[in-house]
Amino acid sequence: MNPLFLSPEHILQGGYFNATLRKLQEPNTSIEPHNIMYPVFLLENDEGMQTVSSMPNVFRYGINKLMPALTELVNNGLKSILIFGIVETLPKDAIGSSADSVNNPVVKALSKIKAAFPDLTIACDVCLCPYTSHGHCGVLTEKGAIDHAASVKRIAEVALAYAKAGADIVAPSDMMDNRIKAIKDALIANSLQNQVSVLSYSCKFASSMYGPFRDTMKSSPMAGDRKCYQLPPGSAGLAARAAARDVAEGADFLMVKPGLPYLDIVRQTKDKYPNHPLFIYQVSGEYAMISRSGDENEMESILMETLTCMRRAGADCIITYFAPLILNLISKKQ
Amino acid sequence: MNPLFLSPEHILQGGYFNATLRKLQEPNTSIEPHNIMYPVFLLENDEGMQTVSSMPNVFRYGINKLMPALTELVNNGLKSILIFGIVETLPKDAIGSSADSVNNPVVKALSKIKAAFPDLTIACDVCLCPYTSHGHCGVLTEKGAIDHAASVKRIAEVALAYAKAGADIVAPSDMMDNRIKAIKDALIANSLQNQVSVLSYSCKFASSMYGPFRDTMKSSPMAGDRKCYQLPPGSAGLAARAAARDVAEGADFLMVKPGLPYLDIVRQTKDKYPNHPLFIYQVSGEYAMISRSGDENEMESILMETLTCMRRAGADCIITYFAPLILNLISKKQ
Amino acid sequence: MNPLFLSPEHILQGGYFNATLRKLQEPNTSIEPHNIMYPVFLLENDEGMQTVSSMPNVFRYGINKLMPALTELVNNGLKSILIFGIVETLPKDAIGSSADSVNNPVVKALSKIKAAFPDLTIACDVCLCPYTSHGHCGVLTEKGAIDHAASVKRIAEVALAYAKAGADIVAPSDMMDNRIKAIKDALIANSLQNQVSVLSYSCKFASSMYGPFRDTMKSSPMAGDRKCYQLPPGSAGLAARAAARDVAEGADFLMVKPGLPYLDIVRQTKDKYPNHPLFIYQVSGEYAMISRSGDENEMESILMETLTCMRRAGADCIITYFAPLILNLISKKQ
Amino acid sequence: MNPLFLSPEHILQGGYFNATLRKLQEPNTSIEPHNIMYPVFLLENDEGMQTVSSMPNVFRYGINKLMPALTELVNNGLKSILIFGIVETLPKDAIGSSADSVNNPVVKALSKIKAAFPDLTIACDVCLCPYTSHGHCGVLTEKGAIDHAASVKRIAEVALAYAKAGADIVAPSDMMDNRIKAIKDALIANSLQNQVSVLSYSCKFASSMYGPFRDTMKSSPMAGDRKCYQLPPGSAGLAARAAARDVAEGADFLMVKPGLPYLDIVRQTKDKYPNHPLFIYQVSGEYAMISRSGDENEMESILMETLTCMRRAGADCIITYFAPLILNLISKKQ
Amino acid sequence: MNPLFLSPEHILQGGYFNATLRKLQEPNTSIEPHNIMYPVFLLENDEGMQTVSSMPNVFRYGINKLMPALTELVNNGLKSILIFGIVETLPKDAIGSSADSVNNPVVKALSKIKAAFPDLTIACDVCLCPYTSHGHCGVLTEKGAIDHAASVKRIAEVALAYAKAGADIVAPSDMMDNRIKAIKDALIANSLQNQVSVLSYSCKFASSMYGPFRDTMKSSPMAGDRKCYQLPPGSAGLAARAAARDVAEGADFLMVKPGLPYLDIVRQTKDKYPNHPLFIYQVSGEYAMISRSGDENEMESILMETLTCMRRAGADCIITYFAPLILNLISKKQ
Amino acid sequence: MNPLFLSPEHILQGGYFNATLRKLQEPNTSIEPHNIMYPVFLLENDEGMQTVSSMPNVFRYGINKLMPALTELVNNGLKSILIFGIVETLPKDAIGSSADSVNNPVVKALSKIKAAFPDLTIACDVCLCPYTSHGHCGVLTEKGAIDHAASVKRIAEVALAYAKAGADIVAPSDMMDNRIKAIKDALIANSLQNQVSVLSYSCKFASSMYGPFRDTMKSSPMAGDRKCYQLPPGSAGLAARAAARDVAEGADFLMVKPGLPYLDIVRQTKDKYPNHPLFIYQVSGEYAMISRSGDENEMESILMETLTCMRRAGADCIITYFAPLILNLISKKQ
Ligand SMILES: [Zn+2]
Ligand SMILES: [Zn+2]
Ligand SMILES: [Zn+2]
Ligand SMILES: [Zn+2]
Ligand SMILES: [Zn+2]
Ligand SMILES: [Zn+2]
Repeated sequence: MNPLFLSPEHILQGGYFNATLRKLQEPNTSIEPHNIMYPVFLLENDEGMQTVSSMPNVFRYGINKLMPALTELVNNGLKSILIFGIVETLPKDAIGSSADSVNNPVVKALSKIKAAFPDLTIACDVCLCPYTSHGHCGVLTEKGAIDHAASVKRIAEVALAYAKAGADIVAPSDMMDNRIKAIKDALIANSLQNQVSVLSYSCKFASSMYGPFRDTMKSSPMAGDRKCYQLPPGSAGLAARAAARDVAEGADFLMVKPGLPYLDIVRQTKDKYPNHPLFIYQVSGEYAMISRSGDENEMESILMETLTCMRRAGADCIITYFAPLILNLISKKQ
Repeated sequence: MNPLFLSPEHILQGGYFNATLRKLQEPNTSIEPHNIMYPVFLLENDEGMQTVSSMPNVFRYGINKLMPALTELVNNGLKSILIFGIVETLPKDAIGSSADSVNNPVVKALSKIKAAFPDLTIACDVCLCPYTSHGHCGVLTEKGAIDHAASVKRIAEVALAYAKAGADIVAPSDMMDNRIKAIKDALIANSLQNQVSVLSYSCKFASSMYGPFRDTMKSSPMAGDRKCYQLPPGSAGLAARAAARDVAEGADFLMVKPGLPYLDIVRQTKDKYPNHPLFIYQVSGEYAMISRSGDENEMESILMETLTCMRRAGADCIITYFAPLILNLISKKQ
Repeated sequence: MNPLFLSPEHILQGGYFNATLRKLQEPNTSIEPHNIMYPVFLLENDEGMQTVSSMPNVFRYGINKLMPALTELVNNGLKSILIFGIVETLPKDAIGSSADSVNNPVVKALSKIKAAFPDLTIACDVCLCPYTSHGHCGVLTEKGAIDHAASVKRIAEVALAYAKAGADIVAPSDMMDNRIKAIKDALIANSLQNQVSVLSYSCKFASSMYGPFRDTMKSSPMAGDRKCYQLPPGSAGLAARAAARDVAEGADFLMVKPGLPYLDIVRQTKDKYPNHPLFIYQVSGEYAMISRSGDENEMESILMETLTCMRRAGADCIITYFAPLILNLISKKQ
Repeated sequence: MNPLFLSPEHILQGGYFNATLRKLQEPNTSIEPHNIMYPVFLLENDEGMQTVSSMPNVFRYGINKLMPALTELVNNGLKSILIFGIVETLPKDAIGSSADSVNNPVVKALSKIKAAFPDLTIACDVCLCPYTSHGHCGVLTEKGAIDHAASVKRIAEVALAYAKAGADIVAPSDMMDNRIKAIKDALIANSLQNQVSVLSYSCKFASSMYGPFRDTMKSSPMAGDRKCYQLPPGSAGLAARAAARDVAEGADFLMVKPGLPYLDIVRQTKDKYPNHPLFIYQVSGEYAMISRSGDENEMESILMETLTCMRRAGADCIITYFAPLILNLISKKQ
Repeated sequence: MNPLFLSPEHILQGGYFNATLRKLQEPNTSIEPHNIMYPVFLLENDEGMQTVSSMPNVFRYGINKLMPALTELVNNGLKSILIFGIVETLPKDAIGSSADSVNNPVVKALSKIKAAFPDLTIACDVCLCPYTSHGHCGVLTEKGAIDHAASVKRIAEVALAYAKAGADIVAPSDMMDNRIKAIKDALIANSLQNQVSVLSYSCKFASSMYGPFRDTMKSSPMAGDRKCYQLPPGSAGLAARAAARDVAEGADFLMVKPGLPYLDIVRQTKDKYPNHPLFIYQVSGEYAMISRSGDENEMESILMETLTCMRRAGADCIITYFAPLILNLISKKQ
Repeated sequence: MNPLFLSPEHILQGGYFNATLRKLQEPNTSIEPHNIMYPVFLLENDEGMQTVSSMPNVFRYGINKLMPALTELVNNGLKSILIFGIVETLPKDAIGSSADSVNNPVVKALSKIKAAFPDLTIACDVCLCPYTSHGHCGVLTEKGAIDHAASVKRIAEVALAYAKAGADIVAPSDMMDNRIKAIKDALIANSLQNQVSVLSYSCKFASSMYGPFRDTMKSSPMAGDRKCYQLPPGSAGLAARAAARDVAEGADFLMVKPGLPYLDIVRQTKDKYPNHPLFIYQVSGEYAMISRSGDENEMESILMETLTCMRRAGADCIITYFAPLILNLISKKQ
């Protein structure tokens, strides 16, 4: 009798000694095309195409440049995109009127993209901050505080505009309380509730990892570093309450943002809402760090490990600037 | 305000109106090669190859016929097999001596298969019934009852023989209480516990769906229709206790058999033991029913739906006679 | 001391070694007449009687042919039926007006059946698809999408018509969000809420096993294979949310459809809502597969095992084309 | 809109307005023969037959009178009995030697009953109190306290004697801690563990309802009114711990005794151990009260309601002196 | 080492070997005056006093006979009563107008009792059945079905009348869905919500044990044996939903009726709503059975054991015809 | 009434609009010196000091160079270190004899460090891999597989040697099943169990982020990239079982390694074992990525955010190469 062995159920190594067995031990962590969503930055100038200095291989596109890029990606398996509008000449005002004007690049582009790629799922980021003169995500009171009711009303209007223009998913990133219900009510009133999903930026933290994104969006941050009412990084409690709020208000999908340093929040959210598909936004700071994490092989290994970890933590879909590279890696594997 | 709408969280159709969204709603149900295990029936005659009248497209192979068949399957993605030995001329006796004799076809074949397919995971069914003169799964007392202690001792000896011969997984199908611990103790005593897994037929029910399998094994059932002490079909309770027993005794992997009519047992087992990979044995009666369920397209649709359902219910790997067809369907899809 | 025995509580075989003990291990799995509901297809032509080529022993009846058939079944123990109307000459239009017209065969037959069989519980399937010119389960918008509000309003009108005509149970199969509340509100407004139950097709999956049923209903499916907004087969999450929705809206009884490949969903639903009687619809594809599963004895064994499994998984009542055969098997057993 | 109705899910009356629907609302409460066990009092005198004054329709039988009585009951559906030995002339001593002597009426009768009724499940009550000179359930120390180790050893010896003589179930009623494990060890050492079940009187309370039983057993209670270490009636906690103890020690089946005033204990035990069949002993005081509860119709209604309530509370089998009457009522119903 | 003892935690007998320890094992089971409520039957004739043949020691009183009886009981500790009005000459009509007329004996007596016994808590049973010409608990539609909305309206009016007349507790026994909310709304509208409690007959079963009570109430049951929409005895599920409904609607206290055969329902209800005081109604059939259960000592032992069991199961207060005897037994013990 | 606001409990922004409130929302996330442990690499050459090219600001020290460095850190608040021995000239053999030889730098240094810094908690990494000729973490069998029993024996011997030499904590990083119990047994046998803690590398994953560490340790990896039997990155299940195993074997503290991509594992482990202090090893790849994540301010913000996130996820102590910088940042803040 071997006194070293406490109990047979504590002998783990017998269960993962080869690659096939290890796959069985890693359920629900495969990375397939539907697990990836690609953020797209859309310029007003239809022929424009700009690099982003802080984010190698990321571009801002005008619609006419975007179409051929999308063609290649869709052929390589791309299933879904998340569109952000970039403002260069459109007027900014107190209520972000350009967000849903007929000249908004997102509004203009949706029907073209939909027509060209009928099987591509199109999500649109919904916020006022790129379009307000003050750069805040909502409408302000005379005293400069957020006018909650007015803000939520505007957010719902913008979301509805994108939905009518052809978006499959509207994704409010503003973090205003109760905007999910306002958007759902607007969709219902327009009989769109069974054709348009709402992806809520439910757990969006006030992270230090958004720097490169701000460059990309050409958004100049206002005085005050919490302009968008993001959650404090150490607060699992507010994240739990935010997800509960959004589920009660009718969100179809939830999001945690950023990803890597918040995988416990992903786990907590998935455990509580196992029936709601969960998105992670792998943010620009994560993109930058991983991009510089080693040579090409090391970087790809680290990238794929982080995606595996995100899936393990409970994410169903990862919004990532690495989407083109990931689609290539998936294709190669097969 | 629309009085028809009770609550935004009850509007489900907004979350699955296209194919990509539906994929996000079906987590952990993909069918990849590592989710499939193929049962192989091995003849004593190395050159033999026999059809099975009740199971179209299923064969019994001698090792020399098996090798080219496996080559094709492994090239098509096959990751794991489950070997059953078929006895035609080997002597049968009271203790099933041929189960682990040097002439046993499984014992003889293991090193050859391992050498040819080093990345193929090889499981071996472990039982005495194909080798005992009385056809029971254990050793009998003078009065004809199961001699539990003697039976467990023999089961462990046979499992050890297969482990030494090169099996990656030993899979006792006899349903004797406490045989998992006996096998683990034997593996430990031979320093094999971290190179050989134990897959327990934990929840094996006394089903009416084993008929074609018995033809395949050429096993003539004894008087008494519970010869192997299988569980009563209506008993979720005994299934729960059987899984608990096997986990406590050190099983690496659990199994539910048959599959389709027992998916609630799959769910119950996975819910209780989420950290133990769970196998389903899609039995011969299921194979027969699905084979006859319609024309080729209908049959393939029904087959793939049942596999999806098994994965949804919590199965990590499905042991199935359809493995060659499934590998083809997976290849085509890509 | 016998080292093979880890723990007395792991010795299971001492608890089920004879038939009486096995019965005690299979609680709540008996098949009595109240556990069975029989689907009835009702023709407009009162004297009609038609076979269904893909479903042996299933007939479409005119009311005058149905009555003697029911008499025999009721005498043999039948407790409940589920009526479907078959349209052959009634006009179809955009809103399914014939569903609740005075000429609808179901509306016409209810009082006759009720008078003849006062103790027979009568359920009526409620949907628009047999009666709409486009074949969809709801009313369409100009663009061809489902008009949710209009659809739910019509579903409630049809359900109310059947309730007024004498149905004990109305069973909406359309899968529109929030139709249960609309029906309950209509029943309340007509003081029928304590005389008519609502059986919701809560978890109805987009299965490949509905083929023969479509023959039976003479319904030609429209372009688009999700016309009825059924759930994706791999989605346990949407099924959980659908059941929650229906319970919150006041459903008296819940349903899972199909049965056999969805027993984990049955278990999940019963575990969550133990106080709501749960129905399974054993669908036409299941009927076909079991019918062809072997000779008469084998088929009956497999049939009764599947019913036992359904009861074990949590079903209280099984809607099945095998009802006449099952009543015979029950009678014989006594 | 009707302001009286708070929520559709609170309208219950729509779910049970006819008899078939009510049956669906009462799952797992049917009374079938396997849900009933009949207590049998066995005299030393093979030809004896005695009435019990305090229990109308209950008899003490010698084996030759018992056989025809059993024949009638088995023909009427009886599936299981629980045998008590009655001592009239056998010597009593300090260790209850007559409990397992060759002259013990139970030991003598078992093979005869088994031979005549091979499908009848035979349980034997196991205790020392009918056979000890002091009337206690165990062996005493010199000071008159219970000698726990000696007592448990004797209980296991008596249980083993009955098991060897042909009992299917041994049912220790002594309430000594750890006697279940001692019995299981004895069964294992004799290779009987998979042919003999242990039914533990796990939750036996010190009730005031055992009076008539004591008459029946002709047992004169000792000084001290807790002679058998029964549980205090108000203690749900000790009952929970007693069941936990017996499950850990390997009990196949559990019991609560008495029944009616302890249905919360039944519920608590079933909730905690859903996978262990649960017995209720409907004791002599319950028998007496129900017998006198009204005229024949009223009494039968009350009896059947109490059985329904016991099943609803979680009992799988009820040990009851009413077994002959119940079998008649079941037969009549069909 | 004593091999018989599996685990120290399984030695229970060390924890309850004397009377003091046993009391410690029986928490929250004491029977004090506040745990008892006494049902009082009030005649129209102020000087009347009648025996009830089927219930020895139970009387119907006119107010002038009730007062001295109450004086004695209050002096002996009585803390609360539940008043039922008995109709002999008051007119009955379709809506039970006499239930809350100025001539109703309950309405008339309340101020007198309150004045005489300011510390006595007075509950009033609220139902229409003693006052309707048809004997149903609610108002009927033209077709003879219950008119739910009209019924709930009347129940609330009656409850309000008793509240205004001085009742501390109104106890609706009608089992109509949503009547608790209607009563609470009426109390609020009259500023009585903080002076009057609502005790809901939440879990009132269709029991065979109400016979003697019907004699007492002189109520002749109507055709149809479910006139009050009581719950089916086997349905724990409907009981759970009924308690949930009443808690959601604002019930202060819950009730289970009858008591003894429903202690699992008591347990289930208390487990789910630990913060709502729970009443048991020990009904007339229980009273009759216990009254005849033996000689005076035996009967008192059995009575006190059943009360202990009710308290153990979770009851806070027991409504019982034995109240005078219990108060005597309590006094003697002190 | 503002229709936009669904429910007051969903208004979150009222709870974190200033810095103090945000701190209240971030419980248990402060970074104090006791939450940090510093890894120290110890050279054989007492006077040595080497930079590590892939890890800026990380050094290998001989003991005489280490002492002044530690003095500065301890003065700046350092509370604990984790020592790794670096082998340059010591002989390597099959069983790693140099791990616990008198010449081992760790063995030699412990008493000196302890004497100089009596309040510094000293942990020692325990493994064989730096000292074996084959580079594996355990002893091998003749066939080259891990000899489990021999390996665990050696690990326990090495741990005991460090404990005897003055380590406060021994931290086995080898991942052998059951080594925690072996170490505890060794400590007990030497009466050290109450003076030495065991910190188990419980959940150590086979990550791509160990590259720079391998440079630091000068360890040349063997053929086979799982040499240390680390967990597959996607397997939350094996991590759960590994933590359960180590807790059952007596681990004082648990560890998750790496940190950032495994915060869901941290959460899962802390949720399951809230009473065991939990360590994170922020590995070399994390160090490299964060070091290159931006300019000094950005990098420090990101570093502090990741630490906050680790604490939020459940870590009590973080083992980090950034310890000197963190101590500085803490000092500055005060
Ligand atoms: Zn914004
Ligand atoms: Zn076998
Ligand atoms: Zn339809
Ligand atoms: Zn006894
Ligand atoms: Zn009433
Ligand atoms: Zn190592």
